[in-house]
Amino acid sequence: MNDKDRQFMSRAIFLAKKGKFTTSPNPNVGCVIVQNNRIVGESYHSKTGESHAEVLAMKKAGHFLKGATVYVTLEPCNHYGLTPPCVDELINAKISKIFVSMTDPNPKVSGKSLIKLKKSGVQVISGLLKDESEKINLGFIKRMKQGLPYITIKMATSINSKVIPINFEKNKWISSYKSRQDVQEIRAQSSAVLTTGSTIVSDDSRLNVRWNDFSDELKNIYPEKEIRQPVRIVIDTKNKVHENHKIVNTPGECWLFRSQFSKKRWKKNVKEFSTKLDSEGRIDLIYTMKQIARRKINSILIESGPTFASSLLSLNLFDQIILYIAPKFFGSQSKELIIISKESEINNISKLRFVQVKKIGKDVRVILKKKES
Amino acid sequence: MNDKDRQFMSRAIFLAKKGKFTTSPNPNVGCVIVQNNRIVGESYHSKTGESHAEVLAMKKAGHFLKGATVYVTLEPCNHYGLTPPCVDELINAKISKIFVSMTDPNPKVSGKSLIKLKKSGVQVISGLLKDESEKINLGFIKRMKQGLPYITIKMATSINSKVIPINFEKNKWISSYKSRQDVQEIRAQSSAVLTTGSTIVSDDSRLNVRWNDFSDELKNIYPEKEIRQPVRIVIDTKNKVHENHKIVNTPGECWLFRSQFSKKRWKKNVKEFSTKLDSEGRIDLIYTMKQIARRKINSILIESGPTFASSLLSLNLFDQIILYIAPKFFGSQSKELIIISKESEINNISKLRFVQVKKIGKDVRVILKKKES
Repeated sequence: MNDKDRQFMSRAIFLAKKGKFTTSPNPNVGCVIVQNNRIVGESYHSKTGESHAEVLAMKKAGHFLKGATVYVTLEPCNHYGLTPPCVDELINAKISKIFVSMTDPNPKVSGKSLIKLKKSGVQVISGLLKDESEKINLGFIKRMKQGLPYITIKMATSINSKVIPINFEKNKWISSYKSRQDVQEIRAQSSAVLTTGSTIVSDDSRLNVRWNDFSDELKNIYPEKEIRQPVRIVIDTKNKVHENHKIVNTPGECWLFRSQFSKKRWKKNVKEFSTKLDSEGRIDLIYTMKQIARRKINSILIESGPTFASSLLSLNLFDQIILYIAPKFFGSQSKELIIISKESEINNISKLRFVQVKKIGKDVRVILKKKES
Repeated sequence: MNDKDRQFMSRAIFLAKKGKFTTSPNPNVGCVIVQNNRIVGESYHSKTGESHAEVLAMKKAGHFLKGATVYVTLEPCNHYGLTPPCVDELINAKISKIFVSMTDPNPKVSGKSLIKLKKSGVQVISGLLKDESEKINLGFIKRMKQGLPYITIKMATSINSKVIPINFEKNKWISSYKSRQDVQEIRAQSSAVLTTGSTIVSDDSRLNVRWNDFSDELKNIYPEKEIRQPVRIVIDTKNKVHENHKIVNTPGECWLFRSQFSKKRWKKNVKEFSTKLDSEGRIDLIYTMKQIARRKINSILIESGPTFASSLLSLNLFDQIILYIAPKFFGSQSKELIIISKESEINNISKLRFVQVKKIGKDVRVILKKKES
């Protein structure tokens, strides 16, 4: 491994990121093919059903492919899915060397393609810039390894951690428009956005990705016609969502998780699922998250009120917290950011670390993850 | 004014900052003297009783002084204080031109030296990099213009704005050691540190500047033998501080503001002052801050509990908030960052803006000022 190798793999990672808004439930993958220190083909995976990054890059490389070195961010697939296995195509093309940044996170197949390549006489080097490649597939990795989605809790708050001031007017916002544009960008990268029936009843939110609310920068890299709507999930144990709510009337899939079926005739985009209650009669959130992951949701953005967010926190059922802090104080009697009274539940939360802190317009955005992650 | 002029004034401002730990109650001033585009003398004011920046720079310039151009961050003084008026010395030295970044903030003398210089045939240009020069003297300017100190409220909190968790052990800290080192640096630049009798009773804090707790960087620029202890002020209306508390037994001035004299015989470093109560029997904070400013305190760092900080906020009696946020949650029943229930008091607080946001060790530090400032 030398600087050139690192450069080519960086380029592959850069390309992989181009798919970040659209690949779900597939992973982000980039591929660069090099012959005599020159890139002869490169590509990335854009969305499910479309060709994999390796196949597209190989097509571009054409007759420069034989004897080439391939840089790919994720271990090539070894199975027939919607497309034939990339590993066979690479072997057939007689490449001489392959750099694989990270192996397949699926424990059932991880490393198998590497063995196959080696057996076919291809020189295999794995692990180059592995951390960076993992960073762009946190959701896919989590789902494959743990059968759970990567859960991000998003909240907006005052300086003194109040979320709803007394006498708050409807249709007002705590955070600034710039912060809300930022949320649009995060939403657009999530496989799903999740809220609760109570939030729908109080805010009648749509929770969709709205191109008009994108920043100009985002508009440039993510054209309107390519928009993928994340699945919008409502935890609606008390069957509060009805057919007039915006969430079920906005285009894009909408899943309602309920303790019992309503037998309503919803529009085609709406699906109802029943889920388990725990011993105390509340929804079993771990079970529900697993149900959601089984339906190929890699990453979930939680946009709920403090009660639901607090439930996730006290179960330690989250991976990331994104907090927008507005430069104002709300009165002490206003609703709090989190409501966790039991010390045992507070202690249940993993140790945290700030991974980023940044001004977004007039607000401050902080991102927290678990310390060990 | 050209780029060279800007460079020389920047240099003068850079020099002025060297006095930031020690000049109180005097302002920070830097001076650069230039002859034929070459610096022939430069200096800054270090502390009260020592020569002013202009005088020191003139001494260095020696026979290069006649016809020189002088760059000074603050209008030269025009009165006999502990040192003779700089303006006369500059005139006597027959300098030909002077750049003055900001005029004297004292409305009684502001601009007078400039007129005197002009009348003596010196070319005077004022306003160069004025904003920067003002930034290094916020406290001095506030005291001169408004008869109040520049008030910074410092607080440390959890992510959910709780300051004291239930069952909090004595001698534990919310924020990390790096944050506390940072507080030492801010303390060292303050004319005074202020707390309340209740805080002294519960924490027995010293509130002094401790060289051993400085960061290595700060140790390098601020040697132990030059330490100036800020005046430590305790708002102690109920006479809770007694002769065994550390605050009165730690070297450096300590002022107790009380509603009535205790007639105790304190050590020499301790002074008692009586102050006014307002119509509701609470201490009149605006009056007290004016009393403090009259005693030549430019800037105050508030290191108190939430109750006192909330009083200042609801009176809008502050200039800056420095908040250290630790990456942890405390239970909902823990003590809150601010306690302001009345909406009228919340509305009384000026609109705020984040001026800085930064990671300090494991914590995040945000600085807020009033929007219009």
